[in-house]
Amino acid sequence: MHRIDNLQYANWSEKIFRQMREGEVDAVHVTISYHENFRETVANIEKWNLWFERFPDLIFHGKTGNDVRLARKTNRTAIFFGFQNPSPIEDDIGLVEICHMLGARFMQLTYNNQSLLATGCYEAEDTGITRMGKQVIKEMNRIGLVVDMSHSAERSTLDAMEVSERPIAITHANPYFWHAALRNKSDEVLKALGQSGGMLGFSLYPHHLKGKSDCTLESFCEMIAKTAELIGVENIGLGSDLCQDQPDSIVEWMRVGRWSKEIDYGEGSASDAGFPPMPEWFQDNRDFGNIEQGLKDIGFSQTETAGIMGENWLRFYDENFEAVK
Amino acid sequence: MHRIDNLQYANWSEKIFRQMREGEVDAVHVTISYHENFRETVANIEKWNLWFERFPDLIFHGKTGNDVRLARKTNRTAIFFGFQNPSPIEDDIGLVEICHMLGARFMQLTYNNQSLLATGCYEAEDTGITRMGKQVIKEMNRIGLVVDMSHSAERSTLDAMEVSERPIAITHANPYFWHAALRNKSDEVLKALGQSGGMLGFSLYPHHLKGKSDCTLESFCEMIAKTAELIGVENIGLGSDLCQDQPDSIVEWMRVGRWSKEIDYGEGSASDAGFPPMPEWFQDNRDFGNIEQGLKDIGFSQTETAGIMGENWLRFYDENFEAVK
Repeated sequence: MHRIDNLQYANWSEKIFRQMREGEVDAVHVTISYHENFRETVANIEKWNLWFERFPDLIFHGKTGNDVRLARKTNRTAIFFGFQNPSPIEDDIGLVEICHMLGARFMQLTYNNQSLLATGCYEAEDTGITRMGKQVIKEMNRIGLVVDMSHSAERSTLDAMEVSERPIAITHANPYFWHAALRNKSDEVLKALGQSGGMLGFSLYPHHLKGKSDCTLESFCEMIAKTAELIGVENIGLGSDLCQDQPDSIVEWMRVGRWSKEIDYGEGSASDAGFPPMPEWFQDNRDFGNIEQGLKDIGFSQTETAGIMGENWLRFYDENFEAVK
Repeated sequence: MHRIDNLQYANWSEKIFRQMREGEVDAVHVTISYHENFRETVANIEKWNLWFERFPDLIFHGKTGNDVRLARKTNRTAIFFGFQNPSPIEDDIGLVEICHMLGARFMQLTYNNQSLLATGCYEAEDTGITRMGKQVIKEMNRIGLVVDMSHSAERSTLDAMEVSERPIAITHANPYFWHAALRNKSDEVLKALGQSGGMLGFSLYPHHLKGKSDCTLESFCEMIAKTAELIGVENIGLGSDLCQDQPDSIVEWMRVGRWSKEIDYGEGSASDAGFPPMPEWFQDNRDFGNIEQGLKDIGFSQTETAGIMGENWLRFYDENFEAVK
C-alpha cells in the first residue's frame, strides 16, 4: 500500500522530510508557486534541487507513478511539483511544456482571482474558461500536466471538465454539503468530477473543516464516506494542504501576492488572520496513520482504505503525467 | 554504425530535417543559444518543442546516448541541445541543473570574449578559469553537462581540463598546425584533450579550413589522419558548424550579440563579412557520405572510420550526459 499526500506547502526542512519517512508517506505533491512568474518559479525549483542534493536518502524528484513505487522500495519520499496558479506560464503557452520538462505535474487554472485562463472562487462573476484557457487545457492534455481546479469558481470548474479531454483534479478541498466554505465544492461539481474520472483530495486545512481546528477525526471520516457514495470510492484521496512551520507572512503572500495593496483575509478575518491551528489528530506527516485508522473505523474495507490513502492517486499519476501514447 | 554531427546552427526547417534523414545522421548537437539569457534560451527551446511536435517522424529531443540508438532504429534524428556561451545560466549556478533538466548537454564556457567563467579566444589576456568558473565546472561535472572550450583561449582551455573531473569537449575546431586560425587549437591543447579522454569535433566552417571554401576533401582527411596520430583515433569526431540557410544577419549576431555597438568581424573582415560558402563536397547533411569515403580513401579502417563518423561521440554521450552513479 502506498501513501500519497497530494498537496502540501510546508516551510521545508530536514525535520519535515524525516517526518515524511516516519509517516511512511511515499509521495507528496508540493506547491512550487502561488503568484511567482516563470523566472521566480525556476528559482523555487532550484531550491528543491538543492534539497534533493542534500537529502538524497530522504527525498527525490518524482516524475511518474513508478517513482512512487521506487520511493517505497528505497524508503524515500517522491516529491511531485505543482503550481496553485498559472502565473508560471505567464502569457506564453510554450511554457506549459517547459514547466512539464522541469517537473510540474499539476497546475491550478486560478488561485481565488480571475486569471488569464479561468475564474477564481472569490470573484463575483464567473465567466468560465477563457480563450487562452481552452488552448492551455488542450496543451496540458497533450503534455500530461493535470488541470487542478481547487481554487476555481463553480462554472469554470464545470467548464474545465467539459473542455479537458483527460480527467482533472481538485487536489485539496472538501464537499460544501459538509462545511459550507467558499473553497469547498458543490454536489454538482463533485459528481461531474467522479463521472469524468477525476480525483478529489480531501483537505485538512481547518478553514475547510466542519468545526475548523476542532473538527473530529470521526466527522472527517464520515464526510469521506458520504463523498465516496456521491462520487465513487476510486475518485478520492488526500490533499492535506499542510502548511507546516510556515510563518503567518506566508498566508498573507498566498492571499494577496502582488495583486492588491489592501489586505484580503481570504478564508480568515482581521481578528483571525494567520494560519489556524491544525486538528490535534493531524499535526504533521507522522499522523497519516490516524486517518487510516479512522477510515477503517468508519467501515471502509482494507482495499478502499488503501485506495483513499494513496492507491487512487497512484493510478491517477500513472494515467495522467505523460503524453498519451 | 551511427552518424553524429556534434555542432550545427542552421536556419531550421522541414527541408533540413529531411536532409538529416537523407544523410543518415542519427544525432545532431544543435546550438540553442549564443548570447541569449535564460529566458531567451527558454524561448528558443520552446521553438524546438514546436518542431518536435510538428515533425515527430523526422526528429526528437535526444537526452542520452541511447536516444542515438533509438534514432537509428526509428529512422529519425535525435537533437541534442547545447549553448555556445554560458549566458543562459546568467550569474546563477542553480541554472546549470535547470538547463540540464531542459535538455542542455554541452555548454561553452566562453564565446570569443571574457565571460563570468573563463577567457575567450579573442581577448588580449587570458586569465584562465575564474572563481565562478571553478564552481560551475564542478556543478557541470556533477550533473552531466559537458564543458565545451571551442571558442576559449589557450590557458583557459588547459585550465578547464585540469579543473574538470570529467572529460571536456572541443565540439567544433581544427588543429592550428593545419590552418593557423585563432579558433583552431594548438598541439598542446589537443594532446591534453586526448590524454584526458576528451573529444575534438572537426569543423567544416570555411574560416577553420586550410584554403577556406576551396579546401579539398583530401586535405581535410589528411588533417584528420595527422590529428588521430597526435591525440588518438578514439578522441575525434565531427562538429561541422554547419550554419545552413542562415542570413548574414545571424553571423553578425553571433559575433556582436549585445556586447558592442561597433561591428566586430571576428574571423571575417569588412570586405568579407557574411557566411563564407561551404566547400563543394560538404554543402549540407546529405554530404556526410563524402567525408566517410574520404576517410576510407586516406587509409582509415572500417572501425576507425565508424568511430570518427559517430561511434566516438556516442561513447562520449554514454559516459558524460548523466550524473555519475
